[in-house]
Amino acid sequence: MDQPSAPDLQTAHRLILEQTSALPVQSIPLEEALHRVPSRSLPALLPSPGFNHSTRDGFVLSARPDRQGHYRIAGEIAAGDICKIHLATGEAWRIMTGAQLPAGGVRVIPQEQCTVEGNILRISSKGLLAKNSFIRKQGSNIAQGKVIVPAGTPIQAEHQALLAGVGYTEVPVHLQPKISFFCTGNELVGPTATKLSGQKVSENRFLLKSLTQLFGAMPTDCGLVGDNKNELHRVFATLDSDQPDVIISTGGMGPGKYDLLEDAFIEAGGQVIYNALKMRPGKATLFGTLGQSLFFGLPGPPPAVHLLFHELVRPALLALQGIKRCFPERIRIRLTEPLSCPQEKILCLKSGIFQINNGICTARSAKKSEATSCYLLCPAHRRQLHKGEWIQAHLTNSPFQS
Amino acid sequence: MDQPSAPDLQTAHRLILEQTSALPVQSIPLEEALHRVPSRSLPALLPSPGFNHSTRDGFVLSARPDRQGHYRIAGEIAAGDICKIHLATGEAWRIMTGAQLPAGGVRVIPQEQCTVEGNILRISSKGLLAKNSFIRKQGSNIAQGKVIVPAGTPIQAEHQALLAGVGYTEVPVHLQPKISFFCTGNELVGPTATKLSGQKVSENRFLLKSLTQLFGAMPTDCGLVGDNKNELHRVFATLDSDQPDVIISTGGMGPGKYDLLEDAFIEAGGQVIYNALKMRPGKATLFGTLGQSLFFGLPGPPPAVHLLFHELVRPALLALQGIKRCFPERIRIRLTEPLSCPQEKILCLKSGIFQINNGICTARSAKKSEATSCYLLCPAHRRQLHKGEWIQAHLTNSPFQS
Repeated sequence: MDQPSAPDLQTAHRLILEQTSALPVQSIPLEEALHRVPSRSLPALLPSPGFNHSTRDGFVLSARPDRQGHYRIAGEIAAGDICKIHLATGEAWRIMTGAQLPAGGVRVIPQEQCTVEGNILRISSKGLLAKNSFIRKQGSNIAQGKVIVPAGTPIQAEHQALLAGVGYTEVPVHLQPKISFFCTGNELVGPTATKLSGQKVSENRFLLKSLTQLFGAMPTDCGLVGDNKNELHRVFATLDSDQPDVIISTGGMGPGKYDLLEDAFIEAGGQVIYNALKMRPGKATLFGTLGQSLFFGLPGPPPAVHLLFHELVRPALLALQGIKRCFPERIRIRLTEPLSCPQEKILCLKSGIFQINNGICTARSAKKSEATSCYLLCPAHRRQLHKGEWIQAHLTNSPFQS
Repeated sequence: MDQPSAPDLQTAHRLILEQTSALPVQSIPLEEALHRVPSRSLPALLPSPGFNHSTRDGFVLSARPDRQGHYRIAGEIAAGDICKIHLATGEAWRIMTGAQLPAGGVRVIPQEQCTVEGNILRISSKGLLAKNSFIRKQGSNIAQGKVIVPAGTPIQAEHQALLAGVGYTEVPVHLQPKISFFCTGNELVGPTATKLSGQKVSENRFLLKSLTQLFGAMPTDCGLVGDNKNELHRVFATLDSDQPDVIISTGGMGPGKYDLLEDAFIEAGGQVIYNALKMRPGKATLFGTLGQSLFFGLPGPPPAVHLLFHELVRPALLALQGIKRCFPERIRIRLTEPLSCPQEKILCLKSGIFQINNGICTARSAKKSEATSCYLLCPAHRRQLHKGEWIQAHLTNSPFQS
């Protein structure tokens, strides 16, 4: 069944990325930039903090006391005050946490180390001897020019906060990919249609809408398409003029009489790059281009759609957004249960549940109603993997989660 | 500084959950249910698959050939066909992948094991001897009544697909929490305001908006509030009448002259449950209730806001949605670098970067511009932790990611 020329997973990745380049750039408000991907490194435009400030409520002192050895309280500086004063010798000013340090101020004594008699400040010996100046210097948190987010790294919540603090109100990010998908099969009906014997609700519509959104894309559901040339031609013609960034189909990919997908794709002007992979699932899956759109023809069964989405479509969606680390994270895991592989000759991937046990990465195969958290790689020459054995796995979590 | 009565983190968790119960239930379309939390277990309403069907394009056979030892082809059953036929002895029907099995059909022979001569089907010995019947039985994937999503578990993309297949078009889920937040500090300005010396852009607004959204809540930014009683009274009065599920503030929590938050909260009718914790950061953080709203008074520095959000606010937001596993995942990790703890007497949490190395969970402390992926727990009695040491950590990832 598997063609000698079918590429393996690694080759498929290369073939997909060769066709994929980051989308154009737009400038968006920082507030909307969560999980968007900057098109260039974002350095601090301003230092953080923006000015020297006190880290405590207390008193800021000039370099030296007056001739009587005293500091006299000359006024108060609150957070947010526009501070233009210059401390004279022997002067102390009451200062609040976050308030700008006045010129001539060299240290802050926390208020709990001080007493006030009239306008004279008395400082405890603990306060006088403390090494900490309770001053945070301009730029001590982040120096001007320091990169906050490297190009190709999704912006996280903490990045948004830091970027706001160092002068950003907008950020340049790659556009989000536009995805159009359709599900083929004469047996498929929508969830609200009256279902007759022999018909089934299309599950893949739900799967593809949610998965594409989770990986930062904007999906359009082009609906259900029957297993006939006319309907397939119509949907491809529409898509060819819409020019989404990515087209995904499910079903119609086998060797059967009604598996018309590949022919219809080619007749619509599509270029096939592969139409089978040397892995399981993946024997019946197509990748190609239709005009400016990437095209992924996935098989019909939802478990295969989920797996091939993660292994093949996800890298493309992330690369289109300019993300450097676009592949699922590859890790070593220890099996907590034996694992049967269905096949001996080629790499098989099985849906797994990833769990951390006492600092060790472990996994087992997923039950049918469990959501996949990793894919377990059964090597080509193995049929049965043992409990306790270390194998490779791909995590399905998204790079948008820090 | 730390009060003897200040609760520790574990006690704080108990105090918060005592005030938190799952929000009311609404019915929503399955299509919109990604990451929403069902209020009850969702069992399969129908079996999956819904009918016996062929897993290959091929020929379905009756139990026995005719007297000549032949199977004669009587017709074709495509996927989606409404199938009312009954196979007679010696009958074979061409059948497609996914098509309903006719009554009297006992096995399917894949087409590549067959040749057709006139209306007589010739089957290879490999086809005849195969153990696989190439039939998927009704309910063999998911039996009717089998639980697809347990109560209190977020719905993932694969669950949506399964639920669509077993008869759901709507699902009962808990409401999403409504959050109102405000940031206090005379020094704070909005990102587009002209910034004068001594003023800074509020970073916490960005942090709180994104974090609350990431954990399934709907945030409202109530803006910047000055360090004075009038402004604080006004915002609390508005919030008391709005009755959001959760109110969050930042700043104004220290012992200073302008730290008016706690007094204003009490004067507005708020009940304080704790106003300090035995952990660092956390010495200046308040939890209480204002009418039906939970109230979290967080300190001003954004790193402390991020940490206390994860450790204290996040469990409340998830519990309001009915999620059972509402705390950050606690794991053992191995330090890849030495770690200095600032304090000896109490638990300190430090922002860390979690990484899987060769199947082992490891971490190091985060640099200032890196997004936190875990919090490292420095035990109360330790000042310096060694490279290679195993310690506890809390992961910051969300339960919505499978």
